[in-house]
Amino acid sequence: MQDKNTIAQLIEEGIANAGFPDTPAGLYDPARYILSGSGKRIRPMLTLMGAQLFDDRVEPYLPIAVAMEVFHNFTLVHDDIMDQAPVRRGKPTVHMQWDTTTAILSGDVMLIQAYELISQAPAAVLPDILGMFTQTAKEVCEGQQDDMEFERREMVGLDDYLQMIAKKTSVLLGCCLYCGSRAAGASASDAQLLYEAGLKLGISFQIQDDILDAYADAAHFGKKSGGDIIQNKKTFLTLTLMAIADEEDAPLIHQLFSTQSLPEAEKVSAVMTYYEKYDVRSIADEFMARYYEEARVALNLVQVPEARKEALRWLMENVFSREK
Amino acid sequence: MQDKNTIAQLIEEGIANAGFPDTPAGLYDPARYILSGSGKRIRPMLTLMGAQLFDDRVEPYLPIAVAMEVFHNFTLVHDDIMDQAPVRRGKPTVHMQWDTTTAILSGDVMLIQAYELISQAPAAVLPDILGMFTQTAKEVCEGQQDDMEFERREMVGLDDYLQMIAKKTSVLLGCCLYCGSRAAGASASDAQLLYEAGLKLGISFQIQDDILDAYADAAHFGKKSGGDIIQNKKTFLTLTLMAIADEEDAPLIHQLFSTQSLPEAEKVSAVMTYYEKYDVRSIADEFMARYYEEARVALNLVQVPEARKEALRWLMENVFSREK
Repeated sequence: MQDKNTIAQLIEEGIANAGFPDTPAGLYDPARYILSGSGKRIRPMLTLMGAQLFDDRVEPYLPIAVAMEVFHNFTLVHDDIMDQAPVRRGKPTVHMQWDTTTAILSGDVMLIQAYELISQAPAAVLPDILGMFTQTAKEVCEGQQDDMEFERREMVGLDDYLQMIAKKTSVLLGCCLYCGSRAAGASASDAQLLYEAGLKLGISFQIQDDILDAYADAAHFGKKSGGDIIQNKKTFLTLTLMAIADEEDAPLIHQLFSTQSLPEAEKVSAVMTYYEKYDVRSIADEFMARYYEEARVALNLVQVPEARKEALRWLMENVFSREK
Repeated sequence: MQDKNTIAQLIEEGIANAGFPDTPAGLYDPARYILSGSGKRIRPMLTLMGAQLFDDRVEPYLPIAVAMEVFHNFTLVHDDIMDQAPVRRGKPTVHMQWDTTTAILSGDVMLIQAYELISQAPAAVLPDILGMFTQTAKEVCEGQQDDMEFERREMVGLDDYLQMIAKKTSVLLGCCLYCGSRAAGASASDAQLLYEAGLKLGISFQIQDDILDAYADAAHFGKKSGGDIIQNKKTFLTLTLMAIADEEDAPLIHQLFSTQSLPEAEKVSAVMTYYEKYDVRSIADEFMARYYEEARVALNLVQVPEARKEALRWLMENVFSREK
């Protein structure tokens, strides 16, 4: 077994050698640029920790781990164009640093490179791993599509919202654990349990993200509190509030979430008052805890000695507690 | 063995059932829209004819054939954004019919779906077929990148141009023949010969395309003659001319290819006069014929009875003679 730091270093080396040629530079430089950002590398971490449940060596599974990071960064490049985001992790986004054309094409080649890396999985489980990766990749696209559509709708049901965040971000976490473990010899049922663990962990984390945006101490979390409220963004909190508000409050809340004219602080404060009134925070905390517990239970059921699960438990408990 | 019409019908059915779900409609409708266009289906045709060299049945290889068409149409969707093309095959392009965001994301999911279809190749040859498909997909991106860069450059060498058109369009034809034949049991060396045949055929066809743009009878070819000249587009003919023009003519030709102010007919006529003077047409004809001959020779070397090669020979001689 290898410790977390060794694994983290392996991942950085793997990403630095992800297989992008030097030329044409206009195609591959943007891929290197976004991958060199200071992401948390959660996805390759999950992949290798999934593998380490079943095999002491993690090196053979590094290409799969790197594939997950390359795929994730492909989605960032294309999503940033769609969302017209100027900055990502403190650096200009690819379409700002270069242009939209470059960002489209470099993103495309990153998706292809992710498949090249995935294809290095052991032949015996390649069809299975490919199938999981492809299903996940499609769901991530569907999640992004739903996210954009939901932002244009007046009301979105909580179930639809949960399905959207699951597809947009959580299925990939499940996929990482599935593919890493399966490549390292996990049975189909253990790999499926690990998929569930990653999926539920991701949903729990997304709900936490929504909570933190409204409630976190700005100094600790590093973002302005209430950003989602100011931007009229649909979150677990806003949708819960809209779903349970009484007849009198509902139209006022709807108005709050469609106005651009109110001063920011006043708007945040008005919404937070409604959150208090309807105990929205408690509902969100409960959902977050429930998904986290389901993830924990799924991991418990995986048929490997408890000692092997320690690193993954640590990752679940620590890395996911506050940061993306 | 199945005749051409049966195969063509199979392909249309395969494309109509390419596996795109109904929802989210905003994601999958654009994929269905571009795939329902009246393309020639050259790529799936090549795939199944490659398969038919080695197996009487073609149905098992239909997913691979459809993958090639889905991949090709993915490149059209994204290229049309980059080229700001408003119309494709007489219909609005996806980014015009919907918007750029939709065209990016639908294109992405088409690339993923192409991989899903490719993954249905027989397990024994899956790694090989995946490797060829991925290498090809990367080269297609590199070709598009080079094409865009070349348009911004003053001068491009003929070798660079040939490599660019090979990557942008011809490697995929080689890939179709390779994957179809390999899936149907071709040896690695026969599949490689078929790859060469497709590659060379594609280059020959691209040079022909450049020739036709300048020399075709507009009534027969359906496009205005000299369109490439009017748009200052780099083609085999323009680059050959620039490469061989003498010191006196060279600056005049460079000026011709950078002007926007000359009346169209006058500009076309001036360039055509230089083509005459330097016998550019003959040089292009010779290159076209040489690549076509290399394709023919490669097919001749494939170790199957001559009778099995008839359908593919017919496709090479007829479908590629005039139309894309």
